[in-house]
Amino acid sequence: MNEIKLFSPATVANVSCGFDVLGFCLDTIGDEMIIRKTDKKGIHITKVAGFDLPLQTELNVAGVSAIAIYDAAQPDFGFEIEIYKNIKPGSGVGSSSASASGSVFGINELLGRPYSNLELVKFAMKGEALASQSEHADNIAPGIYGGFTLVKSISPLEILELPCPDDLYAVILHPQIEIKTADARALLPKEIPLQDAITQWSNVGSLVHALHTNDYQLLSRSLNDVVIEPHRCALIPGFNDVKNTAIGNGALGCGISGSGPSIFSICKGESTAKSVAATIEILYSKTEIPFEIYISKINTQGIKIL
Amino acid sequence: MNEIKLFSPATVANVSCGFDVLGFCLDTIGDEMIIRKTDKKGIHITKVAGFDLPLQTELNVAGVSAIAIYDAAQPDFGFEIEIYKNIKPGSGVGSSSASASGSVFGINELLGRPYSNLELVKFAMKGEALASQSEHADNIAPGIYGGFTLVKSISPLEILELPCPDDLYAVILHPQIEIKTADARALLPKEIPLQDAITQWSNVGSLVHALHTNDYQLLSRSLNDVVIEPHRCALIPGFNDVKNTAIGNGALGCGISGSGPSIFSICKGESTAKSVAATIEILYSKTEIPFEIYISKINTQGIKIL
Repeated sequence: MNEIKLFSPATVANVSCGFDVLGFCLDTIGDEMIIRKTDKKGIHITKVAGFDLPLQTELNVAGVSAIAIYDAAQPDFGFEIEIYKNIKPGSGVGSSSASASGSVFGINELLGRPYSNLELVKFAMKGEALASQSEHADNIAPGIYGGFTLVKSISPLEILELPCPDDLYAVILHPQIEIKTADARALLPKEIPLQDAITQWSNVGSLVHALHTNDYQLLSRSLNDVVIEPHRCALIPGFNDVKNTAIGNGALGCGISGSGPSIFSICKGESTAKSVAATIEILYSKTEIPFEIYISKINTQGIKIL
Repeated sequence: MNEIKLFSPATVANVSCGFDVLGFCLDTIGDEMIIRKTDKKGIHITKVAGFDLPLQTELNVAGVSAIAIYDAAQPDFGFEIEIYKNIKPGSGVGSSSASASGSVFGINELLGRPYSNLELVKFAMKGEALASQSEHADNIAPGIYGGFTLVKSISPLEILELPCPDDLYAVILHPQIEIKTADARALLPKEIPLQDAITQWSNVGSLVHALHTNDYQLLSRSLNDVVIEPHRCALIPGFNDVKNTAIGNGALGCGISGSGPSIFSICKGESTAKSVAATIEILYSKTEIPFEIYISKINTQGIKIL
């Protein structure tokens, strides 16, 4: 195999209660990438379509993560990468992570899969660090593993694959405004009330239990963020209205995707997801803000070879 | 049935990472109680053996919780309660909780089980509140449900029964010093670093996942408390030495039981538990502090009828 075409999905990090540790993988939103072996050594980004991103390898997150796996494997050939971005950078659904993960995943396939998923996450984190100035895995892990993941620790890197009920769908509202991850992080307090932290870890524990027991109502009661959302929700016009509408129309939960501005809702079944999406669309049409809405089954596979 | 004799077990709250929400149930440490129907209405404590505790119903935690279920049920007869305390008050393994839960459980049996476990916890919390000035369920829940429990919320009360691997044993070291729960609470900061909170909720999530997947090594890596233990460990002479000894001899984890002074270690298998207990005993014998050591299988049944 000399060439691979793949779909690298968008992902939702934090998932309300699990700031910096939980994430899940989407299915209908994502980038496409073509990666091919070349006689010429090194990593070369030959095309970026969709959004204006650097072609220079060291300045492109897909390039930086590709260099990480390339330097580890040291093959006597090179790779060129074409990136067809569908995920807008800064949308809050893991745009940089999808790029970083896709190149690493594709190169690993073309090398004959010498590296484990955990190692792929490590390589991809090098690319993610270019975009966010720190090494995170909460978007990369669900993209590479699929389903729901919990980043147990960064150093040493440890990722747990959580079970995922069959019929979970996400609705993603992407208001076309810009929130920089660094700005969203700067909003957060360095210290939080112990009582809020207790509520949050109780919710993380019960969310994990809900996924293991297919308990949708418990999942719903666990999708509650008393620590981060109160600080960040003001950055997203209409957040509370969207949340109330989503939950009022049957969503199990609704929160900020990553550092925003995208808002995710989790629904049991496609028909509920469609109804939630329709009512959010009517609501958000009343604002002046351009937006996109996506409905996606939760993707338990992760990156897909096309 | 006019009389019931029961074993109301000691319990370990917090379980390192799960301050105020996690707990598990012990099997070889606990109080015995005899409860019998009487023609005379009301709740009467007729005997307290083992420790000097009030006979006056309203001043005895078992009495107060008994009144709660009695007032709800309004039977046309009464109950008398004999309490044989084996759990020293203030030991950190849920002494007041065992008393409060036992009377409620026994009365419910004699009434023909009109109340659910969740309702029993609510009644028992009234007794617990007498001892700790606030309504907690993190000792009561594992005592009534058995195994590992997670108190998802107090209001409304919601308790999750977590799975419990077959061969988990606890070693309990009880140094005979007094730590008042109120003092141990006063030591805690009102605010904690967000980064520590993230570590803690990642550990709670991974502990729940470990119990669901029988992953002992993950359980071990999750039994880590970066929030409470650093503040409280100084109250317990030799805590760090005990912890290092326990883990060095094969314990999966070791931490403060409730608000101390008892220290729990969790072990896979009885032989490891015995070896951990033996080395802790040698270590603690070098201090001037009198102590007790118990080995107990984790009790998945909770309160037992004798």
